[in-house]
Amino acid sequence: MSLTFEINSRIGKARGGRLITPHAAIETPVFMPVGTVASVKGVPQDTLEELGAQIILGNTYHLYLRPGVDTVRKLGGLHGFMSWRRAILTDSGGFQVFSLNELRKVSEEGVTFRSHLDGSSHFFSPESAMEAQIGLGADIIMAFDECTEYPADQARMRASMEMTARWAARSKKYFEEHKDEVPWGPSSAGGIGEGAGEQQVPRVARNDKDENVTQSLFGIVQGGMDRALRKESAERTIEIGFPGYAIGGLSVGEPRELTREIVESTLEHLPKDKPRYLMGVGTPEEIVEYANLGVDMMDCVLPTRAARHGLLFTSEGKVSIKQARYAQDAGPLDANCGCRVCSRYSRAYLRHLYASNEVLAQVLNTIHNLSFYLDTMRRVRHSISLGEESRFLSRVWSRPKP
Amino acid sequence: MSLTFEINSRIGKARGGRLITPHAAIETPVFMPVGTVASVKGVPQDTLEELGAQIILGNTYHLYLRPGVDTVRKLGGLHGFMSWRRAILTDSGGFQVFSLNELRKVSEEGVTFRSHLDGSSHFFSPESAMEAQIGLGADIIMAFDECTEYPADQARMRASMEMTARWAARSKKYFEEHKDEVPWGPSSAGGIGEGAGEQQVPRVARNDKDENVTQSLFGIVQGGMDRALRKESAERTIEIGFPGYAIGGLSVGEPRELTREIVESTLEHLPKDKPRYLMGVGTPEEIVEYANLGVDMMDCVLPTRAARHGLLFTSEGKVSIKQARYAQDAGPLDANCGCRVCSRYSRAYLRHLYASNEVLAQVLNTIHNLSFYLDTMRRVRHSISLGEESRFLSRVWSRPKP
Repeated sequence: MSLTFEINSRIGKARGGRLITPHAAIETPVFMPVGTVASVKGVPQDTLEELGAQIILGNTYHLYLRPGVDTVRKLGGLHGFMSWRRAILTDSGGFQVFSLNELRKVSEEGVTFRSHLDGSSHFFSPESAMEAQIGLGADIIMAFDECTEYPADQARMRASMEMTARWAARSKKYFEEHKDEVPWGPSSAGGIGEGAGEQQVPRVARNDKDENVTQSLFGIVQGGMDRALRKESAERTIEIGFPGYAIGGLSVGEPRELTREIVESTLEHLPKDKPRYLMGVGTPEEIVEYANLGVDMMDCVLPTRAARHGLLFTSEGKVSIKQARYAQDAGPLDANCGCRVCSRYSRAYLRHLYASNEVLAQVLNTIHNLSFYLDTMRRVRHSISLGEESRFLSRVWSRPKP
Repeated sequence: MSLTFEINSRIGKARGGRLITPHAAIETPVFMPVGTVASVKGVPQDTLEELGAQIILGNTYHLYLRPGVDTVRKLGGLHGFMSWRRAILTDSGGFQVFSLNELRKVSEEGVTFRSHLDGSSHFFSPESAMEAQIGLGADIIMAFDECTEYPADQARMRASMEMTARWAARSKKYFEEHKDEVPWGPSSAGGIGEGAGEQQVPRVARNDKDENVTQSLFGIVQGGMDRALRKESAERTIEIGFPGYAIGGLSVGEPRELTREIVESTLEHLPKDKPRYLMGVGTPEEIVEYANLGVDMMDCVLPTRAARHGLLFTSEGKVSIKQARYAQDAGPLDANCGCRVCSRYSRAYLRHLYASNEVLAQVLNTIHNLSFYLDTMRRVRHSISLGEESRFLSRVWSRPKP
């Protein structure tokens, strides 16, 4: 088996489980830090391990452009290339083609787009997106989908959803025919220093020398903001059949209450025994809320991107560390946080680093925000295991700072 | 005693010793990483500890402008402000006023200069430079000097050297009258999380509750590129009397062979039982060479600055990691280096991070270069202790990469 998902505890709609991938077993619900071009910006891999990151996300669009799939494949896939021994998920590139390319051209065959780096022209089809993701070698890869823009009319939402369904079938077909081409093997065991940190995560498959172990391909439900189309998309995607299902096409500009409605209604139509991945959300409050609704996996650039802008999440609300009020504040960023930033540095120092444009500001801010997200999800898992669904919302992150 | 220096082994002119400061005992010869505005750019303090940095340097000019001496003083001095519990040295600001200010005006009283940040006008005198450095609270501080430009004629070199001598006397007078104003004490014990990492370095003074322990002020020898003037500067500085002596005004554009000549001849005139600090040098080969000549302390921005430009020092010479030849190089940056970068990441990955302008490139490159410098000096100390002066030059860093 390339993927096993077991649910160990439930409270309300929330589920606490264990997702076993070729490179690591993952406790769910899980938050996945985003490492766009094979780096969670500013954070060394050993620090990510210390923070308890179980699985990180790579962006196929960016990696395809730089350093290129061929290079990553030759270095043993993303695991070998970036020396990350836990789990990795790659997206299909569909969202970046949508969000970074105003001049893209979509046809039944696929999408022609221009590189945001040099303007060069490229083409992604379900087949080539699968080829790229197989070369990158993540544990979990995603079907090539069309992310429907918001707002969109009914005809557009339906046509887009149907295109995604056809592309999902093509994605699966290509994946099934080529999945044995994944660049894992004795020569790709992790680049330099194989062995360090090995004890921290169970190595499920590679140690078994099980030749049937490979990547897993997840399907993506689209359908815009229409609940009936979402239901139809879920049914058609399930009919094609995947070991896990994602909800895509949200957080594209719609009101947050609408996001929640679509998530909640779509989840009802997804298999109860398969992992459910909500793509590209959200704030600390939202990831708790979505876990409570029964989402098992989430990713978001918010903690890392906000950190680069000096926006820090704490147990007492958001802190904009650039503010002059912190210039002589000797206290820790978050007195309730045990991360290596809060246990050592003052708000005054973090404010100084940010105001002075020091690189260490980004490094430390990102470490803290990721720690806050990962700790939040750890508490959610703990609450679920204790059957305390209703309490974790207010305990984890509630009051805005006065 | 605020400073103790003991020499434990000698070979040729080289000395292996131990410099005991209020915050830490330092094995010499020592290389001091530069942390300009209270941060060694891109490297968290715990990583610096792991690398074995015993003492770091802060720049008074930069810290005076941002965050300002008052803020640092209120946070317990630099140690508390940046949560660094080992030793710190600050320069006097004289070199930055010289190198960053083309419009400076020098008078007997001091130097008027403009901020490189906002163009505002400021004034440093020996007294105000001492006041700033006492407020910053480093273990070792430097007399306010005039760094003579290169080239300079004989009259200019003499006048500048004599100015530095007069300023040295004024620096000492102010320091002796105000040294009890250093912001150390029970309330400034190190910011957040006092206690972490305490075991790693002996805490010499603070634990003794010795109220006489304070900073130490070092004198600086100038005199341009004239050996006689250097001798005279040394004699006049020694006459004023300091617990340690620095050689300033080198690495200002002169040929490297001339630097070496001036260092070698100046060292002959410095007390044999006091620490000797050569400011602002050099390459890995040079720091070994200068240690061999009897220098005890050195600092340089080269390892950190070069790292930001992708220039990496290795046991086989310099590597410009941006080069396309490394794009698919699965090997470590330096097979002879045990740092956390070389033990985990490939050249291909480091090249990718640099080419993609990822912040992690600066972080990892800086960690490696500092590791290389600190390891180099560690080997020098080991060689001296074994009486192997003549061998360490070629063992540490020799052949340029073919």
